[in-house]
Amino acid sequence: MNQLSEETRVCIETCLECHATCYGMLMTHCIEMGGEHARPQHVRLMMDCAEICLTAANAMSRKSQFHKQICALCAEVCEACADDCAKLQGMEECVIMCRACAKACSEMA
Amino acid sequence: MNQLSEETRVCIETCLECHATCYGMLMTHCIEMGGEHARPQHVRLMMDCAEICLTAANAMSRKSQFHKQICALCAEVCEACADDCAKLQGMEECVIMCRACAKACSEMA
Amino acid sequence: MNQLSEETRVCIETCLECHATCYGMLMTHCIEMGGEHARPQHVRLMMDCAEICLTAANAMSRKSQFHKQICALCAEVCEACADDCAKLQGMEECVIMCRACAKACSEMA
Amino acid sequence: MNQLSEETRVCIETCLECHATCYGMLMTHCIEMGGEHARPQHVRLMMDCAEICLTAANAMSRKSQFHKQICALCAEVCEACADDCAKLQGMEECVIMCRACAKACSEMA
Repeated sequence: MNQLSEETRVCIETCLECHATCYGMLMTHCIEMGGEHARPQHVRLMMDCAEICLTAANAMSRKSQFHKQICALCAEVCEACADDCAKLQGMEECVIMCRACAKACSEMA
Repeated sequence: MNQLSEETRVCIETCLECHATCYGMLMTHCIEMGGEHARPQHVRLMMDCAEICLTAANAMSRKSQFHKQICALCAEVCEACADDCAKLQGMEECVIMCRACAKACSEMA
Repeated sequence: MNQLSEETRVCIETCLECHATCYGMLMTHCIEMGGEHARPQHVRLMMDCAEICLTAANAMSRKSQFHKQICALCAEVCEACADDCAKLQGMEECVIMCRACAKACSEMA
Repeated sequence: MNQLSEETRVCIETCLECHATCYGMLMTHCIEMGGEHARPQHVRLMMDCAEICLTAANAMSRKSQFHKQICALCAEVCEACADDCAKLQGMEECVIMCRACAKACSEMA
């Protein structure tokens, strides 16, 4: 880790935090609320976001030659997830985190 | 799973098999051989391949709206991994698997 | 992969198939059906099963010194998931797969 | 995430940080140093640690009924990884992180 630039370390940390936020919110708030929070398209988008954030974090951690492409895709998924979460109640934490992660990943890409 | 098309099910299975092959070969053959098999760029590429294959399999399993983009990236990574493995001894299983996965993912994308 | 025993290779394959089945059924059948299929405890158990199966497969693939402990835990989770799925409609594929994986992992442990 | 106790949130964060540290150190420092840092048993143990930390973080994030058992196993793996890293040069960051994660997971278990 000590070889990575400060910018990369921060982006890894942001991706992991976004992974934990989306995954945690999905598996507590969303599935407990039901209704709009548990509609298939929303559940899948939250999962898309959680998974690509982790994939991006790992790619950066291993200095992958594909990290820019993965970060670009991660930014796109995070934006879509933020937009979808913004329509639902009690998802502010997710919206903020996804927007921050989209920004960090865009800059990395 | 029973809702997914036969083509999608086969592609998921191929991605998971490619994940297991790359990850298993890296963690046994490559790190035990050392030398060219353990050079950082090769280790990272094997890991890139193992991880994106899993990410693609999961994306297809959840009918992700981003599955085509993930499969396209997966195909590209698999090709790069196959080319790199083809230069090394005893990696035929990996080369064959990566080429098959690249083909399946390209068609999905 | 070619260094692993036939028994280990089959157990890895079974774990990955169980991962894909549980994850895929959860993300298609369960969240689309809603009701009992989408109750939080069931969703979490399906996810527990999908994740520990993957963790076990990877541990065996890398000849982890902890693979027996992980396989023992995997067997326990698979049994719990099978029991829960058996109470719900249309989950036969999951029940069969989880029981098979529990058996394979018990023998590995 | 906002439903989880402060203790659980901190433990999730610690597990994810330990995942990133072990995985990142393995994929940069260890494989670039070679020699003792890249011996198979060490590589596998670093990977064991990175993976079980992530599995534990996700289990806590979804309020898994198995989180205590996974955290107990995670603590054991982290201790083994810390002991192994302590014998090698330049792995202080990993040793500290693994010990902290072992402590947090023991308390959770």
